[in-house]
Amino acid sequence: MRIDVLSLFPDMFSGPMHDSIVGKAIENGHLTMPVTNFRDYSTNKHGNVDDYPFGGGAGMLLQPQPIFDAVKATQEQAAAEGLPKGRVILMDPAGVTFNQHVAEEFAHEEHLTFLCGHYEGYDERIRTLVTDEVSLGDFVLTGGELASMVMIDATVRLLPGVLGNEESAPGDSFSSGLLEYPQYTRPADFRGMKVPDVLISGNHGKIDEWRQKEALRRTYTRRPDMIDHSQLTQEQKHLLADVRIEEEERAAAEDESRK
Amino acid sequence: MRIDVLSLFPDMFSGPMHDSIVGKAIENGHLTMPVTNFRDYSTNKHGNVDDYPFGGGAGMLLQPQPIFDAVKATQEQAAAEGLPKGRVILMDPAGVTFNQHVAEEFAHEEHLTFLCGHYEGYDERIRTLVTDEVSLGDFVLTGGELASMVMIDATVRLLPGVLGNEESAPGDSFSSGLLEYPQYTRPADFRGMKVPDVLISGNHGKIDEWRQKEALRRTYTRRPDMIDHSQLTQEQKHLLADVRIEEEERAAAEDESRK
Repeated sequence: MRIDVLSLFPDMFSGPMHDSIVGKAIENGHLTMPVTNFRDYSTNKHGNVDDYPFGGGAGMLLQPQPIFDAVKATQEQAAAEGLPKGRVILMDPAGVTFNQHVAEEFAHEEHLTFLCGHYEGYDERIRTLVTDEVSLGDFVLTGGELASMVMIDATVRLLPGVLGNEESAPGDSFSSGLLEYPQYTRPADFRGMKVPDVLISGNHGKIDEWRQKEALRRTYTRRPDMIDHSQLTQEQKHLLADVRIEEEERAAAEDESRK
Repeated sequence: MRIDVLSLFPDMFSGPMHDSIVGKAIENGHLTMPVTNFRDYSTNKHGNVDDYPFGGGAGMLLQPQPIFDAVKATQEQAAAEGLPKGRVILMDPAGVTFNQHVAEEFAHEEHLTFLCGHYEGYDERIRTLVTDEVSLGDFVLTGGELASMVMIDATVRLLPGVLGNEESAPGDSFSSGLLEYPQYTRPADFRGMKVPDVLISGNHGKIDEWRQKEALRRTYTRRPDMIDHSQLTQEQKHLLADVRIEEEERAAAEDESRK
């Protein structure tokens, strides 16, 4: 896969990309990720990339020319490698919210281009270049750089061969559809806090049942919207029924003790 | 404000933090942000911080000891500066979803601590240290580092004095409750794509009305869930009624042309 990043702050990408799974994917040849400063494509003699908004108002806007020309150049480089234009992704609060499904879609592409604004807004005509407008969530960032790093990380870890088995969590949330069950490692007693007995019992049937039940409990109490009843096994349905009764009893007991 | 970051990959923070608003906030004395490698607090002779899960299963888990001791040490440093223990924030898919409201809450604190896991899960007992479990969204990342950088960026830009006026966008989405209107800068005609006439008319009443209407249109067509009717002015209500009729007519015309 080739991922082009267009940013005014290419150095922001060096630290996170070096130490992370993305850096490893580049090292192992699963990924190339050229980071292009679109200021280099400005035809303005001072290298300016922004200007005042038509109609007045505070703030500067990114102009179309440097970004259009940078996208053209990186798409030509990609074409020379036999790659398609691919998806051109703009970080925008008006876009669809990024989630695991979007990451999976991105991971199936051969070529992605991330456009990062910084501080400023951008000229509306830049949207004509774009195939996907994506938002990381309902909050405001100072730039698109961190948002693209997050999306790149979530995408690249899905590429075949990138995650070794030892790193891929057994019960990734959002792939199993349930939150993870509580996990414990040594010591069995840490400053008075003990590991549940069942986990050191050696009884694997009981351990599996406990884990399924606690994953259901955590999802039921924290993210009930994630539970898709049609996807649950018969055993999970029974365990969930038990969890419901236990949690209702717990809530009733708490109410009682408050009186 | 003091933000402590606990991570096994402190170098990941150097690039993004240097070039960004966070770097500027540190330079200008609005923020200190020590990044602590909790491996330095491991009492294990090899500096290990993880171990196999009790009850079996793939993957390694972060052990409680190094993180407990690192949090204790950074809270003692903060106390020496007269700061409270503050909030201890764990990146976790089971947590509340990060949004602008959470960023505003964080921005009111004097001391925040971000705990970043990486690849692995962590021992359940680590949650007893934590005041806030926060998720960036419904997707899986290889570590908590990028997620904390995003949350730190969204928080720090809200600190008084951090954003200069020239950088603070006039109509930030999520603060006005509406998506931004389309914006344009020079040239007025870019490769045949023209700026809307109204924006170069010089008529500021008309320009304001156009912007309000287009902000409503974008929000109505893309994020209708964001519109809080009780917050709209009379004028906005009238404009929204016009937008609705126009968008319905547009949809009907498109249906017609498809037949």
